[in-house]
Parts: sequence; structure tokens; C-alpha cells
Amino acid sequence: MRLATRAQGEPDGELLVVSGDARRCLSAGPRWPNLLAAITRWDVAEPALRALDARLAAGEGTALDESELRAPLPRSWQWLDGSAFPVHGRLMETAFSSPPIETDKPLMYQGMSDCFYGPTDPVPFPDAAQGIDFEGEFGVIVDAVPLGISAAQAMKHIKLVVQINDWSLRALALAEKKTGFGWIQAKPACSMAPYAVTPDALGAHWRDGRVCLDLAIDWNGRRFGNANGCEMAYGFHELIAHAAATRNLVAGTIIGSGTVANEEFARTGSSCISERRAIEIIADGKPSTPFMSFGDRVRMEAHMPEGAAPFGALDQEAVRA
Amino acid sequence: MRLATRAQGEPDGELLVVSGDARRCLSAGPRWPNLLAAITRWDVAEPALRALDARLAAGEGTALDESELRAPLPRSWQWLDGSAFPVHGRLMETAFSSPPIETDKPLMYQGMSDCFYGPTDPVPFPDAAQGIDFEGEFGVIVDAVPLGISAAQAMKHIKLVVQINDWSLRALALAEKKTGFGWIQAKPACSMAPYAVTPDALGAHWRDGRVCLDLAIDWNGRRFGNANGCEMAYGFHELIAHAAATRNLVAGTIIGSGTVANEEFARTGSSCISERRAIEIIADGKPSTPFMSFGDRVRMEAHMPEGAAPFGALDQEAVRA
Repeated sequence: MRLATRAQGEPDGELLVVSGDARRCLSAGPRWPNLLAAITRWDVAEPALRALDARLAAGEGTALDESELRAPLPRSWQWLDGSAFPVHGRLMETAFSSPPIETDKPLMYQGMSDCFYGPTDPVPFPDAAQGIDFEGEFGVIVDAVPLGISAAQAMKHIKLVVQINDWSLRALALAEKKTGFGWIQAKPACSMAPYAVTPDALGAHWRDGRVCLDLAIDWNGRRFGNANGCEMAYGFHELIAHAAATRNLVAGTIIGSGTVANEEFARTGSSCISERRAIEIIADGKPSTPFMSFGDRVRMEAHMPEGAAPFGALDQEAVRA
Repeated sequence: MRLATRAQGEPDGELLVVSGDARRCLSAGPRWPNLLAAITRWDVAEPALRALDARLAAGEGTALDESELRAPLPRSWQWLDGSAFPVHGRLMETAFSSPPIETDKPLMYQGMSDCFYGPTDPVPFPDAAQGIDFEGEFGVIVDAVPLGISAAQAMKHIKLVVQINDWSLRALALAEKKTGFGWIQAKPACSMAPYAVTPDALGAHWRDGRVCLDLAIDWNGRRFGNANGCEMAYGFHELIAHAAATRNLVAGTIIGSGTVANEEFARTGSSCISERRAIEIIADGKPSTPFMSFGDRVRMEAHMPEGAAPFGALDQEAVRA
């Protein structure tokens, strides 16, 4: 099942169920006005939404106008972003001669959740000298998760899978990281691709709590990366268990994978500029790829092997705030 | 003006305007069903709430049952906690032989905002060996703040002042801090004292973006600290400007001061156990005060010089989750 959110006066938008070919949709209606309401009562909402999905499969529905779509969750109560691809961390540490992070747990920070930009929204930044960068990621949306849950039990709480661009300001990031407090200025609002899908919609590509799909990233129309989501050191279920060790997770919590990265980065490319610069530093002693300029575009779209894009595309321009 | 939130079926509760003596109240009514709704349209809500406040001053209203009160904001979209009292950081660094944090900006992390416990809620923790600690703080609630605002302009966006206990798990905190990613497991939900007040209600004790009041902290009935909120290195307006440097702040964002601490800590005591332990380590080479046990209570209440408690009291028990 594939869900989307249509622009509307309301800050949370209008929840749609979308056909597999993304050509038709049915409004979820007043009982489930938006995705935040639906995920809060997913036990009741899911059967109702699946019934609409069956009607779409039978040919019902109205034409979908993709230009009206926003982030599936335009805002939520909690966004917890992991950094679960080991090769990404290793490249960054090597390039910047940082000592490896000493931890036997997943890395995770809490970020801004009150705004997720929609698929084609221009993204405002105050200053291009702050090192504007994208980070291609996958994420999951959970229903309410109780404190102390095991990773195995957490798997059942993964209700939807999403694709995210975790925009970052690299010139500010290292200084904030050094404080130990995580990121405020270096991590403004993220973007979310238009479709949230149930794990079953990914078929065999949803595996061990991982999205085993290539995430194509094009910067100003040139292929930049096409790394696969499979190489997470921790699956999303393990990230959830980590997050819920001392807190209940509110329904609608979004958990991120961190920048998708592969051991074969020479073949797959990278999912953020910073990682490519790290590779350049290791190879050449200095980076040669600049960060983004105002007016630059980045497009992100994960593909099934046969070419379908389950989450749709993020295609956005960085603009001056 | 003093606001509170009454328990109700709704997750956001019911907004009340409360008389100066906390004996009477008026419901804000269906137009402003809860504080999150009111702060989102504060330009319109404030005059309506002030009109109710005038009616309370004229003797109207029904009896207030304090036992029904929850956190003024039981949940919000964003909680950004500073660490603005320099003596607290210095003591911690000295005790643990940590290098000083190198930054010319305020320290701030983003924490869990989907749940703020109410004034007498028992607070669940999974394991007393995790170093259960309280942190007495002040905080402010803002309306929508635009990206790039100056500190001077930010002052106008401080609509309400609150008193917070930022519960912390110290055995988990240092390891998370070392990752640079901030705190997930070490910072579960906070608590908020029952009354949110407009800055004018603090009179001359609201000064330069600081709450210049003593915050009395009693642990199991014994006075533990009574530090004054005046010694922030950055005022709340400066913390807001820091937070808004690269993001718009959503209405209802709560900004925290960090643990209230004074240079004369020998006289004022501390607002968290960890700081007292740091003082003990510096003096004696080792800490002698343990962290909290299940069944322990902590009470926090800021006082005006004449004894009034503008935010009311937090009085809670730590319990096993």
C-alpha cells in the first residue's frame, strides 16, 4: 500500500491512498484526515486504508496530481536519525583524522520534526558558505512503541517506509558535533519523498529491517550516487529498540537510516557531498567537489530492479532564505 | 497572566486561565481548546485570554482543582534545551577532567517534545542503575520565530515562561555525549510545572531574558538547591536567535535554560545531583551523593521574594517503568 499527503489548508494536509502506478488516488476521508491521525490509530486505520487500496486495485479512484503532493508526514512529534552505514562513518573519520566514535550502540540524534519539506519544495538556506549538503536516506514510521521493546518486537511497529533528504550545513556540523550536544544549526528541516509505503510493498527488497534498494542521486542532472540501502550495521528494528530503551516512542515517530553508503563506494558513488569530499581527501589530500550553490538541484529516487520508484522522487532546488 | 492545562480526554488537554492566587480559573473555551492551539495564533489568542484574566481579577471563575493539572504543554513540536549556566559546565569539566567545550555559541540539544509529564505524575525509569537525576531549569515558549532573527527581535517572541525538570540518566549520558550526536537514551521525557506565565507576571524578576528567581529543589523533603536563574551566560532571547539561525522555529517551541547553577554554589546548592557529585569529586576526590532510587521524590518550586510560586510546584516520584 502506498500513501501520500495532498496540499490543503491544514498543516497536516489530506491523506490519500495511491494506486500502484501512482496514477489514481482515493482520499482517506474525514475519519483519517491526515497521516498523523492514521498512524496514531493504525490498528483501526490500516484496514480502512487497505480497503481503499483494494478499490484502487479494482480500478476506482480519481486522477492523482503529483504536483499537489507534500511530504507524507509534513510534521511529526519526533524525528530520530541514525547513522547506520559503517562505511560512511569510516570514510569521514579517515578523511578528517578523527578518532573512531567509541560506542557499542547505534549512533542517533534527535532532529527537527515540525517541518518536512515536500517533494519539489524549494529549500531555503541563509548562506551558501555554510556548506549546503544533501544526505540521501531511508526511514520508517512507527506506531506507538513501548519503552524497553526488543528489536524483534520492534519490527512489528514498522508501519511505513519513506525516503528522506537530511539537509545538512557542513561548515557548522563539526563544531556542533564537538560540543557533544548534537546538531541544531547544522541540521535544518529535512525533505520527504511523496510516497510512504507499507513494508510489504517493497516485497523481497524489505529485508531484515533494511530497504535493499538503490537510491539514485542526481545533482544538477548528473548521477552522483546510487548506493544500496542494504548495508546498514543495524536494521531499523534495532534502531527503534535503541531509541525506545528509555522512552516510549510516540506514534508517528520517524527513524532514519543515516546517509546510505556502500563498501563499494568507488562503484556506487555517495549519498552526500561530504562523503565524496572525504574520499577525495583520502585519495588526493584535498577535496575537489564543492558543496551546493543556490540554484543547484538535487534529485533522489530509489528504484526497484525493474525500475519502479516506490517512494517517488525528491527533486528540489536550494535557494537563498 | 497565568495559564494551565487541565486533564481531559484529548492529548493536549484543556486550556485554563488561572487567577493570581491559583484558586480560581476560567476555561479558555472551544476557540482556544489547548495551549498549543493558542500559541499558534498568539496574536489573536492573547487578547482573548487577557480578557478572561480580567474577569478573574474581577472575581469571576470557578474553583481550581490543582490535582487536575497537567503540564501546560503536554506535548509540543520542538524542545531545544540550552546549557547556559557557565558554572555548571565548569564544575562538570573540572570534576571529570574533560577539556572545556570549544565553542563561541550557546550549547543546545534537541530533546523529546512529544511528552512533558505533569506536576505530580510518577516518572518511570527502566533501571535505577542508569543514574536517575533531576535537572531544575527554566524555559520559555515562543510563537513562530522566523529564521535569522536577531536576539533583540527574538525577545518579542517570548510569550510564556515555564519551569522544567529535565530528567537525565547519568550512567548513559557521557557515552552519548562522546559520540557527538547528543542524547537519546540519557534524556527521556521532561516534566513541566503546572503554570505557564507571561513574562510580565514575573515583574522585575524577568530581566534581560532571564528568570531572576530562586529555584528551590527538595529531594525527599530535604533542601538540595536554591540557585537563582539570573546567571545565564546567554539570555533566552539569545538562545532563540541561536536556534533560529538556520531554521524557522515552530510556534510552541520550548527553549530551556539548562541546569540552573550559581557561582556561589557553596551557598545555593545545586539543581541536579550530578553537579553536587562533581563538587564532591573536586573537594574529596570522589562523589558521596548517590543518584535517585525508585520511590524517591523531588520537588521543584521557584519563588518570588515574597514567597509566591508563579509556576507552581513539580513534586514527583521516580518509579520503575
